[in-house]
Amino acid sequence: MSVNAPRGFTASGIACGIKHSGNLDLALVATESVQGVPAAAVFTSNRAAAAPVTVSRAHLVSTGGRAAAVVVSSGNANAATGARGVSDAERICELTARSLGVSPREVLICQTGLIGIQLPMERIESGIGALVSARDSGPQLAALAAEAIMTTDTVRKEVVVEGGGFTVGAMAKGAAMLAPNLATMLAVLTTDAECEAGELQVGLARAVETTFNQMTVDGCTSTNDSVVLLASGSSTVRPTPDELAAALERACSQLASMMVADAEGATKVVKVVVRGAASLVDARRAARKVAESMLVKCSLNGEDAYWGRVLSELGSSGAEFVMDRVSVSYGGIPVCRGGTAVPGHDVDEVRAHMSRSEVEITCDLGLGEFSAEVLSCDLGHGYIDENRTTS
Amino acid sequence: MSVNAPRGFTASGIACGIKHSGNLDLALVATESVQGVPAAAVFTSNRAAAAPVTVSRAHLVSTGGRAAAVVVSSGNANAATGARGVSDAERICELTARSLGVSPREVLICQTGLIGIQLPMERIESGIGALVSARDSGPQLAALAAEAIMTTDTVRKEVVVEGGGFTVGAMAKGAAMLAPNLATMLAVLTTDAECEAGELQVGLARAVETTFNQMTVDGCTSTNDSVVLLASGSSTVRPTPDELAAALERACSQLASMMVADAEGATKVVKVVVRGAASLVDARRAARKVAESMLVKCSLNGEDAYWGRVLSELGSSGAEFVMDRVSVSYGGIPVCRGGTAVPGHDVDEVRAHMSRSEVEITCDLGLGEFSAEVLSCDLGHGYIDENRTTS
Repeated sequence: MSVNAPRGFTASGIACGIKHSGNLDLALVATESVQGVPAAAVFTSNRAAAAPVTVSRAHLVSTGGRAAAVVVSSGNANAATGARGVSDAERICELTARSLGVSPREVLICQTGLIGIQLPMERIESGIGALVSARDSGPQLAALAAEAIMTTDTVRKEVVVEGGGFTVGAMAKGAAMLAPNLATMLAVLTTDAECEAGELQVGLARAVETTFNQMTVDGCTSTNDSVVLLASGSSTVRPTPDELAAALERACSQLASMMVADAEGATKVVKVVVRGAASLVDARRAARKVAESMLVKCSLNGEDAYWGRVLSELGSSGAEFVMDRVSVSYGGIPVCRGGTAVPGHDVDEVRAHMSRSEVEITCDLGLGEFSAEVLSCDLGHGYIDENRTTS
Repeated sequence: MSVNAPRGFTASGIACGIKHSGNLDLALVATESVQGVPAAAVFTSNRAAAAPVTVSRAHLVSTGGRAAAVVVSSGNANAATGARGVSDAERICELTARSLGVSPREVLICQTGLIGIQLPMERIESGIGALVSARDSGPQLAALAAEAIMTTDTVRKEVVVEGGGFTVGAMAKGAAMLAPNLATMLAVLTTDAECEAGELQVGLARAVETTFNQMTVDGCTSTNDSVVLLASGSSTVRPTPDELAAALERACSQLASMMVADAEGATKVVKVVVRGAASLVDARRAARKVAESMLVKCSLNGEDAYWGRVLSELGSSGAEFVMDRVSVSYGGIPVCRGGTAVPGHDVDEVRAHMSRSEVEITCDLGLGEFSAEVLSCDLGHGYIDENRTTS
């Protein structure tokens, strides 16, 4: 159950041949009534943004925030593909729109996969008819859609959240090239709440900022990151801005956890909490520096509570930092206080925490009232093996 | 041959028991005449700076830039050790000074190793006498000193550079926790040039900026990074500022290459060149982002010329970036031009370049006249194995 769980949406997923493996690689999320509905999106901050980002951004602007469908393909990012990449993305929107009977501008497109290779357009074009006619509101079809957007993901990432009388459904992909700073992966959210496009945009931006933007796998920001949200209004419930944002945040938060847990080669998820920072910017900066540290991630892989590396990263994060104010704990067990080791702390208890699949590192800078949390994972051989070659 | 090659310097290295392995762990570089001479230093930008950094910085300030000796220990960083760490570092300077017959303020100290553990002071104190009496101007003693500062280094890093009538000698350690931003490792340089402390500081800062600050292994800035320079004046040659900076830059550049080549788990060195940037800041920022990218480093490990990742990092570096102006080449072979693939480029030739131990990635942003180079290395299993646990 995911994107077609809210009333008014259908989904489908097929294999059209982008992936040589024959795995599913083309997904559709469309409104049941095949009409444009209020929509919002957050895209990558990468200046090397891919063609589908360019096209979707332009479509949303030209419709003033309406969409009838989102088509998603995996296996080829359609990034660094020049003008041809843009016209190919436009063509996919056009064919999908024609098949559905809507305007091409009402179709958004997300793509993920290898950079720098032109799309196999013949295969995609011949698949769109089947994709559109397969769409349905059943959970099986949502599962096929969620599977068709996977690249190195090992599990589907689907979520359904109940608001007060309305539902949010979502699917996402992402297992590497995940880093803070705007949208950090690919996600499609739907809701049957009744909202204007502007309300959706505000709610989505709030949810993305506190969820997807606070996770990191490798500090790399993709060329294709997109989070798209469509609201059918079918529930006839109008949530307040806070109710909407809360439901979206719960959905995004669950997807973020699923993505970090499925990170390439990772054996554990780590939550880095920074408290007592002098500002929110400092808290986030410090938490991200620790969460992105290759040395800290290696220690996590070895289940070694080497807090010295955490301290060193805090000190070089650029955040306000006074050595003798700092304390660090692993799983709630203080290991460093006042900038030095806590003598006689329970080493066995710390070791037991480090062996868990979810580890928590809490740092108190002792300088102010601000805090932040960043989700990350360890760095193991698997990440390297996954990313050594593209073949 | 290294730190005692310039006239007027002696060196020594012993094992005092800081390292449980019994390897050398205590080194001394001292002026032959046992007198303070003009000195300069550049220290870590990490706000969690270790005790030896605090002490050496204070000593240099209080003498107005003079030093008679540098004592260096490895195996314990004396970082995150609080007030006791500072008094221990002061005590090591005092004992060394007493043994040499100089003021404690004329002794500088550098330390490297594990963070968060108090020094085994009894062992160090009992070793200082032997360290001081062993000092000599022969190359064997310089080699012992260079060996005594190694941690995970697999080779000694020694260098001698001839200026116009004067000599620069240097030793360094560093194989991880290397990243741009001020001094990025531990190095002791000596010269028999005749210079004021102020001239030395300017020359050293220039050399560090273009060498050590333009390399990266893991993006981590250590708590202990220090580059120290002493000038005996024994050659009676007074170089111009440019002559001094050029000789120092050659010495630092050679050491930087040696450090990256010896990086933990690395199988190859990569030089990332960014040209055509809109500003120097942009050129350096873009080159560092590519050089630090975990995905690019994994590709290098797999000898895979996946330029899409390079483009993506350039785009998310924060530097001015216009997709269709960008070109990328590997070893001089253009693979991307105008933001898309160069059709029909010689794949075999690129593959042959990628298999070399020194790889060059050149990116032209096509926007301006500024360029920068950053040295880095690939990311392999060895780095993780080295850093999983501290035991």
